[in-house]
Amino acid sequence: MNNPLRLGVAGLGTVGGGVLDEIHDNGKLIAERAGREVAITAVCAKEIPNQQDVSSFKWYDDAMELANSSDIDVFVELMGGEGGIALASVKAALASGKHVVTANKAMLAHHGAELAELAEANDVSLNYEAAIAGAIPVVKVMRESLAGNTIKRVYGIMNGTCNYILTKMEEEGRSFKEVLADAQDLGYAEADPSFDIGGIDAAHKLACMTSLAFGTRTDFNSIFIEGIEHITLSDIKNADELGYKIKLLGVALATPDGIEQRVHPTLVKKGTPIAEVGGVFNAVGVSGDFVDDIMMQGRGAGAHPTASSVVGDIADIARGIKVPVFGIPAKDLKPSKRARMRAHEGGYYVAFDLYDKPGSVACVANAFSDEGISMKMIKQHAPVETDGNKATAPFILITHNTEEAKLRKVLEVLKNGDYCANEPRMIRIERF
Amino acid sequence: MNNPLRLGVAGLGTVGGGVLDEIHDNGKLIAERAGREVAITAVCAKEIPNQQDVSSFKWYDDAMELANSSDIDVFVELMGGEGGIALASVKAALASGKHVVTANKAMLAHHGAELAELAEANDVSLNYEAAIAGAIPVVKVMRESLAGNTIKRVYGIMNGTCNYILTKMEEEGRSFKEVLADAQDLGYAEADPSFDIGGIDAAHKLACMTSLAFGTRTDFNSIFIEGIEHITLSDIKNADELGYKIKLLGVALATPDGIEQRVHPTLVKKGTPIAEVGGVFNAVGVSGDFVDDIMMQGRGAGAHPTASSVVGDIADIARGIKVPVFGIPAKDLKPSKRARMRAHEGGYYVAFDLYDKPGSVACVANAFSDEGISMKMIKQHAPVETDGNKATAPFILITHNTEEAKLRKVLEVLKNGDYCANEPRMIRIERF
Repeated sequence: MNNPLRLGVAGLGTVGGGVLDEIHDNGKLIAERAGREVAITAVCAKEIPNQQDVSSFKWYDDAMELANSSDIDVFVELMGGEGGIALASVKAALASGKHVVTANKAMLAHHGAELAELAEANDVSLNYEAAIAGAIPVVKVMRESLAGNTIKRVYGIMNGTCNYILTKMEEEGRSFKEVLADAQDLGYAEADPSFDIGGIDAAHKLACMTSLAFGTRTDFNSIFIEGIEHITLSDIKNADELGYKIKLLGVALATPDGIEQRVHPTLVKKGTPIAEVGGVFNAVGVSGDFVDDIMMQGRGAGAHPTASSVVGDIADIARGIKVPVFGIPAKDLKPSKRARMRAHEGGYYVAFDLYDKPGSVACVANAFSDEGISMKMIKQHAPVETDGNKATAPFILITHNTEEAKLRKVLEVLKNGDYCANEPRMIRIERF
Repeated sequence: MNNPLRLGVAGLGTVGGGVLDEIHDNGKLIAERAGREVAITAVCAKEIPNQQDVSSFKWYDDAMELANSSDIDVFVELMGGEGGIALASVKAALASGKHVVTANKAMLAHHGAELAELAEANDVSLNYEAAIAGAIPVVKVMRESLAGNTIKRVYGIMNGTCNYILTKMEEEGRSFKEVLADAQDLGYAEADPSFDIGGIDAAHKLACMTSLAFGTRTDFNSIFIEGIEHITLSDIKNADELGYKIKLLGVALATPDGIEQRVHPTLVKKGTPIAEVGGVFNAVGVSGDFVDDIMMQGRGAGAHPTASSVVGDIADIARGIKVPVFGIPAKDLKPSKRARMRAHEGGYYVAFDLYDKPGSVACVANAFSDEGISMKMIKQHAPVETDGNKATAPFILITHNTEEAKLRKVLEVLKNGDYCANEPRMIRIERF
C-alpha cells in the first residue's frame, strides 16, 4: 500500500467534527477502498473543541500556517466565509501544491474560477462536493457521470431551512413568522436567518452548478435572487388549490440570450418529483440532451451527511482521481453572459384583492389582454367586507407562458388601478 | 491534447445506436471535458443497421475479433446476454489489456467477481454504469461518492416495465393482464416479459449493487426473487386504502446473519420518496452511516438515457479515472454469506377471503397470536354472497415487524383452516 494521504483539517465546527468522526469510524474501510490510508495529521481551529479529542493531531493556531505546512498533502477547509482567512489559506494551500477539499460555497461562488485556475496551474485537486446540497453528490455526477451531455437546465431545492419553513407553513397552516421562530428554536435556522431565507445561500450553490453545467466562470453577481420572506399563508393555500406547491428553487438554464440564473420562490406542480421533496431535505435535478432528467435527493446539511461528501472528495484524491474543477479546464471557462430576468419566459401566479364593484374583473382582464398575456386559471373567492372599508375579493390567477417584462407591465397597471385594493403579488412557475 | 481514445462498439441495437448518436452530437464537448478526443474506430453487429451510418467505422463481423483487435483501446459491449459471445469477448478484451464498458447486467450478476479480477489483473477498467438503472449514476455514486460510508441498505425500483404496470393498475384500476398487454403494444414490455415481470432483470442489477455496497462477490443465486405476476387489482386497492403503494423493489441489506438480497413486490408508505416514483422511471436509494439516505431517480431504459451512462463511463477512461470494479480490489471481495428469507424481519400485508360465520375472525386472530405476531391494521369489508356459495368477506391485515418464518407458519394455518375461502396472499412491507 502507498504512503498515507495526510490531511490537515482547518475548522472544527459541525462539519469538521463530522469529518473527524467519519475518518475515525470508517478509516479501515476507506483505506481498503482508496488503496491508501487516509490520516488526519494536523488540525486548526479558533479554539480547542470540547467534544473532540484532538490530542493525536498536530495543532495549529493559524490556518495559514497549516496551509503552508509540509505535514499535510490535503488542506481541508471547513471554516467558511467568502473571503478572509478561508480564501487566503486555500490559495496558499493550492499555491504550495496541496490538494484542497472545501465545503465553502460562498468562497467558490465568488472566487471559484480564480481558485480553479490556481488549482489546475499547480496540478492539484479542488474538490467541493459538500458545498452544494450537503450529502447529495451533485458535483461528481455533473462533472463526471454526465460528461457526455449538453446540459440544458439545472435546478434544485438547495436550502433546507427554506424548505422546512415552506413545508411547515403548508402542512400546519401557520405563518412564515411563526414557523421561522420554531425553526430557530430547533436549530434549523440561524439567529440571523437572512442568508438562508433571503436566497443568498441557495444562490452560492447555484453559482457553482451553473459553471459545472455550462462551462462558464462562476458569476454570483449575475444571479437574480428573491427570498421567501414575502410568501404568505394565503399564497400557499392558493397554490395548493390550483394544484401547486411553493418551493425556493435555484434554476440555471441556457437561453438564446445567455445564461439565466435565478433563485426565487416557485410554484411547482404537485406530483412532480421536486414538489414532493419536503422538510429539511434538498434535491438537485439536471436535464441534459441524452440523460433526459435525473433528480437526486438527500440531506442538505448536518455534521455527518456533509462529512460524507467531504470524505468522498478525500477518497477521490487518495485514489488519484483528478478532474477539472468545473468540468472543463479552468482556462477555457467562458465568461457567463447574463440573460436578464425581463426576458425570462414562464408562467406566473398573480394574487391581489379586488374591490367588489362593477367592471373590476373587466379591468383586470384588459390589463392582461393589452400585453397579450393569456390566462390559464382564474379563481375569485367571495368578497369580504371589512369594518368601514369597501368589500374586497381575493383574486388569483395563473398565466400561460409569457415574457417577464410584459407581466411586470401588467403588475404596474394593476397596482395603479383603482380596482386593486393592494399591490399584486407575483410568484414564478417552473415546469418539470 | 493526448491521442484519441479509440472505441470499438460491439452491438448496434437500441443502446449502441444511442452511443453512436451521443458521440456524434457531443464529441467536441466530451473531448473538452475529458482532455482527449473520444473516437469510435470500429463496430461490430449481427447485421448492418438501417438507421445508422457506420461507413466511417471499421466493420467487424465477429465480436471476438473486435475484442482482440489492436485498433481499439476500449471494448464497448452492448450485445447483452449472460454468457456466450458477450462474456467471451469481454474476457478477451480484458485479457488483451483493453478497458471494457458494458451495459450487460446479466453477465455481471453471474460473472462479476471473476471479470473484476481479470480487469484488475490487467490494470484496466471495467465500467458498467448503464447496467444498473439506466441513466442513474448509481455505480459511480456508490463506489466513489460514498467511499467513506459503511453501507447499511441499498434498494431500488430497477425495472421500468414493472413500475409502469403497477402504476397503471393503480391509476386506471385495470388488471395486470390488461396493462401488460398495453405495455407490450407500447414497446415497454418484451413479447416474452418473464425476465422483467418475474423480477430476474431487477435481481441482476441488485446483485451488482450488493457487491458495491458490501464488498462481497456477486452472488446472483442467493437472491430471493418474487415477481409481480400475482399482484391483483384488489391488492393495489387494499394497499391504497391502508396508505401504501405496491412497488417491485430490489433490496439488499447487511444483517447479523449475512447479506439479505431480495426482489419482490413491496408495500411502501405513500409520501416516501420511493413510493412517489411512478411510470417507467427507476429510482435507487442508498443508506449509509454518515450520508443517511440518498435517492436518485431517472430513466431506467431507452437509447439516449442509457447511452448517457455508457458515455460517462468512456469519459472516465479518457480522463484516466480508474476505480476497483466493485469499490474494493476484486481479490479482497468476500464471499457473500446468504441471510435466509425465513429470518427476514419486517411487516407483512396479508389478504384472503373469510367465510362469514361465527368464530372466523377469532380463528384468524388466534393463528397470529399463537406465533406472537401482533397486528397493526385490520380491515374487513362487508361479506359478498356469490351464487350458490357461502358468503365470504375480504379480510386484510398488516402486521407489526415479525420474523418471516413465523408469518409463513401462520399462512399455513390459515390456508388449512375451514374459515378461509382461499389461499392467503402475502406482500412484504419495507420501511423508509
